[in-house]
Parts: sequence; C-alpha cells; structure tokens
Amino acid sequence: MDIEEFRKAGYRAVDRICDYYASLSERPVLAQVKPGYLTSALPHEAPQKGESMDVIANDFQTLILPGITHWQHPSFFAYFPSNATFPGMLADIYASSVTNPGFNWMCSPACTELESVVMDWAANLLGLSSSFHVASGVGGGAIQSSASDSALVAVIAARARFLIAHPDVPAEKLVIYLSTQTHSLGTKTAAILNIPFRALPVMPEDAFSLRGDRLRDAYEEDRNAGKWPFVLIATVGSTSSGAVDALEELGPITKDFPDFWLHVDAAWAGVSFSCPEYREQGRLKEINAFADSCCVNFHKWGLVNFDASTLWLRDRRHLTEALDVSPYYLRNKHSDEGTLQFRDNFSSDFPSRLQFFYYILELIGTVIDYRHWQVALGRRFRSIKLWFVLRSYGVEGFQNHIRKCVRLGTLFHDLLSTSSIFEVVTPRSLALTVFRLIIPDAGADASSPPPASLARPIDLQTLNELNMELHHRLTEGSGPGGEDDKLFLTRTDLNGKVCIRLVVGAERTQEEHVQRAFDILCKVGKVLLNDVTPIREP
Amino acid sequence: MDIEEFRKAGYRAVDRICDYYASLSERPVLAQVKPGYLTSALPHEAPQKGESMDVIANDFQTLILPGITHWQHPSFFAYFPSNATFPGMLADIYASSVTNPGFNWMCSPACTELESVVMDWAANLLGLSSSFHVASGVGGGAIQSSASDSALVAVIAARARFLIAHPDVPAEKLVIYLSTQTHSLGTKTAAILNIPFRALPVMPEDAFSLRGDRLRDAYEEDRNAGKWPFVLIATVGSTSSGAVDALEELGPITKDFPDFWLHVDAAWAGVSFSCPEYREQGRLKEINAFADSCCVNFHKWGLVNFDASTLWLRDRRHLTEALDVSPYYLRNKHSDEGTLQFRDNFSSDFPSRLQFFYYILELIGTVIDYRHWQVALGRRFRSIKLWFVLRSYGVEGFQNHIRKCVRLGTLFHDLLSTSSIFEVVTPRSLALTVFRLIIPDAGADASSPPPASLARPIDLQTLNELNMELHHRLTEGSGPGGEDDKLFLTRTDLNGKVCIRLVVGAERTQEEHVQRAFDILCKVGKVLLNDVTPIREP
Repeated sequence: MDIEEFRKAGYRAVDRICDYYASLSERPVLAQVKPGYLTSALPHEAPQKGESMDVIANDFQTLILPGITHWQHPSFFAYFPSNATFPGMLADIYASSVTNPGFNWMCSPACTELESVVMDWAANLLGLSSSFHVASGVGGGAIQSSASDSALVAVIAARARFLIAHPDVPAEKLVIYLSTQTHSLGTKTAAILNIPFRALPVMPEDAFSLRGDRLRDAYEEDRNAGKWPFVLIATVGSTSSGAVDALEELGPITKDFPDFWLHVDAAWAGVSFSCPEYREQGRLKEINAFADSCCVNFHKWGLVNFDASTLWLRDRRHLTEALDVSPYYLRNKHSDEGTLQFRDNFSSDFPSRLQFFYYILELIGTVIDYRHWQVALGRRFRSIKLWFVLRSYGVEGFQNHIRKCVRLGTLFHDLLSTSSIFEVVTPRSLALTVFRLIIPDAGADASSPPPASLARPIDLQTLNELNMELHHRLTEGSGPGGEDDKLFLTRTDLNGKVCIRLVVGAERTQEEHVQRAFDILCKVGKVLLNDVTPIREP
Repeated sequence: MDIEEFRKAGYRAVDRICDYYASLSERPVLAQVKPGYLTSALPHEAPQKGESMDVIANDFQTLILPGITHWQHPSFFAYFPSNATFPGMLADIYASSVTNPGFNWMCSPACTELESVVMDWAANLLGLSSSFHVASGVGGGAIQSSASDSALVAVIAARARFLIAHPDVPAEKLVIYLSTQTHSLGTKTAAILNIPFRALPVMPEDAFSLRGDRLRDAYEEDRNAGKWPFVLIATVGSTSSGAVDALEELGPITKDFPDFWLHVDAAWAGVSFSCPEYREQGRLKEINAFADSCCVNFHKWGLVNFDASTLWLRDRRHLTEALDVSPYYLRNKHSDEGTLQFRDNFSSDFPSRLQFFYYILELIGTVIDYRHWQVALGRRFRSIKLWFVLRSYGVEGFQNHIRKCVRLGTLFHDLLSTSSIFEVVTPRSLALTVFRLIIPDAGADASSPPPASLARPIDLQTLNELNMELHHRLTEGSGPGGEDDKLFLTRTDLNGKVCIRLVVGAERTQEEHVQRAFDILCKVGKVLLNDVTPIREP
C-alpha cells in the first residue's frame, strides 16, 4: 500500500466515521447478533495474496459494525460510559502514524515529556494537590491502560514500601483491604499478587459506603491474628451504586497504621472533580490529604478514547523503585554465577552522553522514565489523546459535558421519583440512579400515584424475580412495543436486592433520550405488573 | 467539534501522515531535542476555552514531531523494529471510532469474535500446533499489550497450575527460572509477583543459548535446598544477540519436573516462523512439542502497529481460572461476614437470556471472555489491526517483508565480515548482527584486509572503551562527516564484551540504507582507530 493508496483509504475511513456518527442514533444500542456470528462468517486462515483495502474496509462495514454495541449511542445508559470523541480519534490517528514503544526518553522524547505535562494538566483540572504533580519532583502521574492496572501497580508500590519498612514481616502475612463494593480490580489484584484480601462490609444505611469503624475493627482483629493489612483500596463512585467511601473517617485512621497505603479508585466519578461543586461529595479534600495514590479513568466519562487511566502517586519512588528491575537484580540472591546484565531492551545503556545526562536528571528526580511506572516495558503514545481532548474542549467544555450529564441524570432520577411503580434504591450519585420496580398499592394508577412508602410489602425474592424479568424484557425488546421498547441497562445486586442502574455519560445524550428511557421503563414495567396480577391480588 | 469539522480535520491528518512518510527518509532518525524541550514549551495548565483543531494539529507538527525518534525510518537499525504500516493505521482509525472496553462478548461481540479468529490466523501463519488454536477448545490465544504482560500472565497461570497440584508447597518456596540473556520481562515478572528468580548462565561457546544441563543441574540443586522451580522463561531470539535457547534439550527436561511450565518468549524472532525456512533455527517443532505458552510480538517486526503481543496457551483454562475472580471469591477465606458479590462491571450479570446462553457456551469452552486472559478488565479493539494487516499483505506479502529483512541483514553481515576493523561477535541471527570494532594488524589497510583471526590481541578493557567511543561518535555525529555520519545503533554487553548491534526490520529499508550504514561504520571506525594510534603502536 503506497502513500496515495493510503490517502484514498484514509479519506474513506474518515468519511465512513462521519456516516457512522450521523446515523448513530438510528441504530439499536445493542449489537443484534448471536454468539458465533462472526466466527462462522470468516475464513479459517489469512489469505495467501494481499487484498485491496476497499474489500477489507467494506468487510468492516458489513461484518464488524453489526457486531458492535454502540457505546457512543445517545441512549447508551448501561455499565459506565466509555466516551469516544472526535479530538480523541484524531489524536489516535496522529499517534498511530509515529508508532514507537516509548519505553524511555530516547525512544521518542515527545512521548515522555507530553505525558508529564498533561498529567499535571489533568491534576490541575481535577484540583488534585500539588503533591501529586510531576512538577513536584516527588509525586507524579502516568497513564495506565485501566483502573485494574492502576490498582495493581499501586498495590505493588504499597507492598514494596511496607516490606522495606518491615523486613521481618513474612510476605505471606500481608492482607489487602477492600470493601464488598470494590470493583473486581481489587480481587484481581489480590489474585495476581497471590495476597489474601479482606472485603470489609458496607451497609445500606450508609448508602453502601465504607465507614471508619469497619476498618479499625478489622485491622485490630487481623493484627491480633498476626496478619499485616498494608493497603486499602477505597472507592469514590462504586460500580454498583456510585457509593463514596467515608474518606473523612478512613483517611485519618490509615495514618494510625504503620506504613499503610491508601489507594483511591475514582475511576468513574473522578472526572467530576473538574467541576468544583462536585468535589466535596467526592471527598477530594480527603484524597488530597490522605491518599497515597489515586486513579481516574478519563476513558470512561472523561471524553478520552479508551484507554487512558490516569494514576497519581504522592511519592512516585515507591513505584519506580519497586518496578525498576536493575536494582532488583542487585537485591536478588538467585542471580547465579553467570554474568548477569541488565537487559531492558538496552534502555539502561546510554548510547550517548546526552542520554547519560538524561540519566543524571532522572536520578535527581527532574525527569521521568515511564517504563518503571507500569507492568510493560513498551507503551503507546496515549498522552496525545488527553492533550487533544483537553485543548479542544478546554476546561469549560469539559465541565459542560460533566454538568450536562449530571443534569440529565438528575432529570431521570426526578422523573422516577414521581412514579408509583419504581423506587430509587440508593441516593443518586452524580449521573447514576439505582432503582427497582415495586408493586404499588392496589388502588394506585398513573393519575394518582401513592408515595413509594405506601407500596405494599412484598417478599424480596418476588421483587427480585420481577426486576430480573423487567430487565430481560427491556434487553430483549419483549415489551408491548417490541423493538421500540428495547433499553440496554445494567442490572446489579445491592446486599441481595436486585436493582437496575441508569447512568448518563455519552456525549450525544440529550433530554429526549432520557425521557424516552423513562417512558419505556414505565410502559414495560406496567405491562409486567399486569402480567403478574396473581401476585398483586392474593 | 461537529461531524463536518471532524471530516476536515481527519482529511488533514491523513494528508499530514502522507507528507510525513514522503519526507521520512530525509529526516534524522533520532529526535534532535534536549531533555526538557517540550516541558518548557508548553503551558502548565489546560486552556479554559477550547482551541481549534487547526491550532492543535499545527502544534503536533511543530512541537511533537521534532521530539519523535523515527522508528519507521529506513535507516532505523536500533533496538528491535517497531513497525507501523498503513493498514495498521487504518485499522486504528476504525477501532478508535467504535471505542468500547470490550471486556465481555456483550460489550461488543465483534471484538471478542474477531480476536479469536485472527489469533487462529496468526497461529496458522506461524505454523503453531493446532493445540494452540482457539478452535481446539482447550488451547488458544489473546492479544496482550506487550511481551512483559504476556510473560506475567503466563507465569500467573503456571503458578496457579503448580499450587493447585501441590497444595502443600508454600508459595515462598517457588522460584522462576530465566537465563542471563532473558529480557527484563523475566525479572519484572519476578518483581511484580514477589517470587525469587534464578538466572541460569549461558556461554559464548553456545552462542549465548541456554543448554539443558544448566537447567537440570539448577533444578536438582534447588530441589535439594527445598525450593520449587515451577516455570522457565526461555527465549527464541534474545534481545542482545538473537540467541535461541536449546529447546530440543530444555523441552524434554521440563517434562521430567512435576507441573513445570515452559514459557517461550519469541517476541522478536517469532514472526520469522511465517517463512518455513526459519522454523528449524527458531525451534518451532520444539515449541509445538513442549511449550505451555508462547509469545510473539507482531508489533515488533510483524507489520502491526504497537501494541499487539500475541500470547498462546496450550491449555487456556490455567490462565482463565487463575484470573477469573468469581471463583476466587469463593476460594478466599477472607471474604468476611458482609454480603460479597461479584462486581466485575456486571460482566457476570446476564442482562438477557441471550447472554445466559453465551455463558453456557463459555462454560463448555466454545466461546471466550477475554477479560479472564489479562490483568485489566477493559481492553482495546486490537484484533482489527492484525486482521487488516494480514489481509492487506496476505501471507505472501508478510513473508516477503521478513525475507527482505533477513536478506538485508545478511548483506550487512557479509559486508562486515570482509572488513579488517570489525569482527562479528555472535553468529548472525535472522536480520540481527552483533559486532565490534577491533584493532587490525598494523600492516592492514582497506585494500588488503587480513582475516579477523589475525587481529592483534588487545586487552578487553581497551576494546570495550574503543567500542563505547565508536558508539558515541555514531550517535552524536562527531565522526569526520559530522551530521552525515550519524547512525543510531544500540550497544550491548555480552558476558563483558561491549558490542554494537544492527538489526534490519523497517518496512522501507532497502539495500542502499544498509550499504550506507556500513560505509559510515567503516569511515568513523577508521578515523577512531587513527585517533588511538598510541594504542596501536606501543
């Protein structure tokens, strides 16, 4: 493929993306395919002879697009958002054109330096303390692929700090603390590192946020049993219900425990800190005061194409010293009799005095080698996405997006609160509402809805089955309007209560989409309630 | 930014990429900037108001491009290649337009299914045994971000298999085996997992490949000391010299050890298996017979833009069961009194009967949920790059690229072999030659070069300093021709011997670029030898 063929194919790709976004709202949100649809449509081997890009690109349209669930759809309210934006796509194009593995400064100086700069831009945008800025020379941030990667490396840093401070503690005595609402990243980190975890319980009356006394009690119990809890993965904006752990209680307590690390996972909610009015409910002040590390996923609600999980550390050396394998060689007693050199794709070799000069700068903490901040050696040029997005939207544009979503999420919450057949299960968290279908008082109808508190008591199991059935009808389009009544939402379970979540986050979502979602819910819900009359009239 | 603004900016991006590639060979390979160049050129905060994409894209041209080291340059011979191709870039554009986190089938069915299909295409291309194919229902592959990620998850799977088979072995008795030539991914995996490693020695007379007796001796010694080696990370094509470990010896030995895992890192050399004539030297037959897992980076020499590290496993369940945290919850004794649910962004909730059907398929092994194959939950749509590249080049085009690079690497090797001032240090490995400057016999000149074996013996330290100086002059352009004599190569150290590496791998490299590199080496090398006359005439 020569340059002119690429130009033609590139223009066509841009045109097709334009067509895609122009037609997006008319597509169904959820891919309308069955498992195996693509596997059976494709040959078992690559072709012997090269094919033309026209043919390949047409297959993208006819084979791939039908199997895509449209996360950018204005009626996408499931999971959490995963924003893609035009500036983010353009950044990806430019980054892709200068592909390089970016493992050290020399590899491509722009990659390292831009990442340091935009991580400070992002810290500023969110109001993170200057301790977390790269420019502080002590703290700093890096872009990871996901909140799971961020949590993993944060716990590795925490473990290194703890074991260095407590060389006599056997590693098998370590325990990771989570709450029962922590995302799977907590248990996955524990599984990867083969360290036991303890999931601290949370209560509905605390809106599922972790309280300080739970932490203190567990810690005392574990210490008495000879165990060493060394890190808490706290959450600001939990996956199930958007709960915010009580950092104002947890933070000071963590400081009472020796070398105990506080990691705050604000993957979804963290971008709301761009608006000062949401900082208090998200406990930004406490993050700034107490967190050792903090993660925010700009690739969720933050307008940056997946992947861009920003991780900040208060003292970056805990991480870089844990993951820099050159001193690790020196520490390890198993390095055998052979000549053991440091083979980091030569990143430790200094091909020139310039790079040696750079190495000195690194030692004194004025520059960064991002290979020591992550699992992999090589890395993609991701900072350019953050740079393009923050410049193209500006702080104000970014804030407008967040505020619009919270406003629409509030609209949905308020609509739902007026309904007699639904109840809001936990307090609205930003743009997320968690609710369930209930069986209203027998006399109730839409024209005179009774307050939710009058809803007839009914056993939990029945309500759970009812909500599972509602969710099924919405997803499958088996409501009265068929396909028109399809709605892709996520189900969750809060201490045994089956609920449904609706979160606003897509860039193109407007009031009409939220209103339509509410209307469908009411319509399908009412038909379902009629279908289960035997329950209603015992 | 609306659709028409995106179209305009997209066309412009494509045009600029075309300009970039048209002018690439006239640019210097190495970025001509000093540390801090970009940091000092950019503001400390994101702008309040959004900026136009014209301004942003212009800054890419004027600020970013000068700080890029051009890995696609036809004269890039350093490290290992990191190919970017037009089909790969186009795939990235399309993938970026439908951004989604792809953590399960429902998320976007096309992402999961295409990955399964192209992993089998790639396995077929490389001649991997059908045991490694997804279609086998037992083995299979996934795209990871890097060879370090691949090694990490392979060792996690190995650890899980071993500890399940040996529940009485304490985890702190485990040992990871590497060789002294294993890439830093080995020691980094050990650092992450906090498991000791032992780096087995390799010898120059074996061309730095790991031999079987070293493994057997170490294993016996460690077992006698009560330790449990459970995995060997072997290498096909080492970073320093392209060495291939003696899998024909190692493979059978690993089968003598209980539940011992063989991971083969063929990150660079693996793509050469696409050509049948390179399979024997790369020990493909032994990989197929003995390896439990195997990694090949298509993003190095394999024409796919970073990142695309393909990892295959002979039995995928060892990995998916180790990283699926739902059973982990059940196994863990620390899950406390609270209601602990599985919160994997709801990926375990089945929003519909369709997804439940899919879950059943997964249980019986006919479909894949890639979130259990990696550290992160979310993942990018990377399979499309592999799909576009393999279709656009076809098997023949892919083979032509590999063969051309080996031919040019051989050309360089043969040119160097005729020179009196250089010696080849290890046997050429595919397109990689490792060499050093030597001090020829006093009477030698270019017109009557003596064989390298006649080179005057000189102490190692002096030769090492000479080669470091040569490398410095090449990198800095301080040879006789100044900037014209710049050459970006990587230095390495083989059991104490400082060497220089030249590897051919860029798509645009032609004979003239290799010839020019050789000419520069001769010119700068001769001047350097003249400068050190005191050494030559004691």
